[in-house]
Amino acid sequence: MRTTIKDIAAKTNLSVTTVSLVLNNKPSKISQKTKELVLKTAKELHYRPNQLAVGLIKKRTKTIGLIVSDIRNNFFSSLAKGIEDECRRNGWTLILCNTSDNHQRDIEYIHVLASKSVDGILYCMSVDSTRENFQKSYDLLGALNIPFVMIDRSYPMPNRAIVRLDHIRGGYMATQHLLELGHKRIACVTGPNYLEDSRDRLDGYKKALMEAGIVFDESLIFEGGYDMGSGINAVHSLIGKDFSAIFAFNDMMAYGVYKGLKAHGLCVPADISVIGYDDIFLSEILEVPLTTIKQPIELMGCAATKKLISIIEHEPLGGDTTIFEPELIVRKSTTAYPQN
Amino acid sequence: MRTTIKDIAAKTNLSVTTVSLVLNNKPSKISQKTKELVLKTAKELHYRPNQLAVGLIKKRTKTIGLIVSDIRNNFFSSLAKGIEDECRRNGWTLILCNTSDNHQRDIEYIHVLASKSVDGILYCMSVDSTRENFQKSYDLLGALNIPFVMIDRSYPMPNRAIVRLDHIRGGYMATQHLLELGHKRIACVTGPNYLEDSRDRLDGYKKALMEAGIVFDESLIFEGGYDMGSGINAVHSLIGKDFSAIFAFNDMMAYGVYKGLKAHGLCVPADISVIGYDDIFLSEILEVPLTTIKQPIELMGCAATKKLISIIEHEPLGGDTTIFEPELIVRKSTTAYPQN
Repeated sequence: MRTTIKDIAAKTNLSVTTVSLVLNNKPSKISQKTKELVLKTAKELHYRPNQLAVGLIKKRTKTIGLIVSDIRNNFFSSLAKGIEDECRRNGWTLILCNTSDNHQRDIEYIHVLASKSVDGILYCMSVDSTRENFQKSYDLLGALNIPFVMIDRSYPMPNRAIVRLDHIRGGYMATQHLLELGHKRIACVTGPNYLEDSRDRLDGYKKALMEAGIVFDESLIFEGGYDMGSGINAVHSLIGKDFSAIFAFNDMMAYGVYKGLKAHGLCVPADISVIGYDDIFLSEILEVPLTTIKQPIELMGCAATKKLISIIEHEPLGGDTTIFEPELIVRKSTTAYPQN
Repeated sequence: MRTTIKDIAAKTNLSVTTVSLVLNNKPSKISQKTKELVLKTAKELHYRPNQLAVGLIKKRTKTIGLIVSDIRNNFFSSLAKGIEDECRRNGWTLILCNTSDNHQRDIEYIHVLASKSVDGILYCMSVDSTRENFQKSYDLLGALNIPFVMIDRSYPMPNRAIVRLDHIRGGYMATQHLLELGHKRIACVTGPNYLEDSRDRLDGYKKALMEAGIVFDESLIFEGGYDMGSGINAVHSLIGKDFSAIFAFNDMMAYGVYKGLKAHGLCVPADISVIGYDDIFLSEILEVPLTTIKQPIELMGCAATKKLISIIEHEPLGGDTTIFEPELIVRKSTTAYPQN
């Protein structure tokens, strides 16, 4: 059993009150010698205050819940690492909830975290978070009055904090890179159309095309689901159309594009240039290292954690957005057009 | 603020005692109509019992702590997913602790988890867990009297449960595969020598060589640290020696071996066959998909969680080992010798 104040009292032949006064550092007339005896014994017996009791009294658990959609995707495991590091530095603890991209579990976990009395939630929505689904989560968080910070994926809404990348700029940069290499017919593998993070990338793509005087061609756009399979399917669907480059809206889909192109006997970048988005660590170690738009994932996790703790401790709502800048990482999967 | 029994009492004009009796399903003479009103109101107000209070009374938090060495390595994120799934199915919650392969943090986190009153710990030690470091963790867990299950990495010791792969057999199978392809000079990139999981793989390697009548050659063994950099360094160190195949003791190091071989202008598998260990998901999507020994990672996480819950609920100690069988996954990185 864990050591309690009673155990220390028994071991030292002191009263529970005396031990409690010393351990809680309350003003008293207890002698220095007795104080030292109590502290020494507490250390020997590995005494730690029971955080359940502390939580009930202080109404603060110093615990944060993290809801992610798929911890096996390196984007989210790197994010979790950044968050966990920041929690540790501040003496906070992290409860991990993995929804496997199922909105119903988002709801389930918000309830669980509330019942565990977390002080706040860092929330990455499932990929099936339509506007309606998001509204349900948002309303529930409001009803439970739990401070929260949205990470990466969200919908515009007053009075809540978001930490995310400037995806319009990210989409613009990726497209601009391909345009500068001479590509004019650039296919896209997007995320689900209802998600803002995907629509923003597409807006950036359109903006870059427009500035280059190229007419947007709907037939070059394939709607994916941010998973590797979407990338493979995109190639099967796009093949036969006239394009020399593909912009995949995340790295996982870019890997699928690699696989799909290979199945059609096409080489990256000799036949088709490919650019991804995220810069998860495997992109660097691929046989043809992937050119991509880097999201500073761990830093974003760290910023979101800081923001949430600050909301819990000082700010009532924190209705602002922290926007990180994307960075173009040029590797080997993109090359000049015409490539021969 | 979260809804309390008082809020429900106020809303329904009933006494706190009445509401409490209904919500805790205690025998009483309260009418069915009143019961329904209380339950309906509780639902409307999103009432959930405060688990801190429940935990203090029941001495049970239904919370498990998971200590992993690097959540960004897909081995551990897949493990975390398996564990989290099993926790969810059983109504348990998971606290995630990431040590970044630093033993000092193992100790720190055991203290934190104890103060959070977790009911048990699933423990994957840091890579720097020498016998002495392990002893410190083991003694601390004993002193705190927290049930725990070791996953993957451990040292032999009575009275504790371990869930792991049969690494002697895994090492044997990997080597046997290369021998069957005609390779006789097989280099190894091991983990740290003090770790049993690495020594076991090496024992399996030696056993297979012995059965094939091949003398063990110490000069073909490179001691790595289970990270990608070790694989690169191994190639630089081994190059010039006579070998036709490399057995990397995990997939991350195999990726490093790929990089190192490429830097020396060598092709996989035409020049050198490579086999890994773990079968993390990227191994399949590499340009030359990696032949490897599969660990059923998510299933192991699930089994460890079941074991821990059973120790918490029934068994006083649970001093046994659950051993999973390795599986050979043949892909494209290994081929027959001579390859030309």
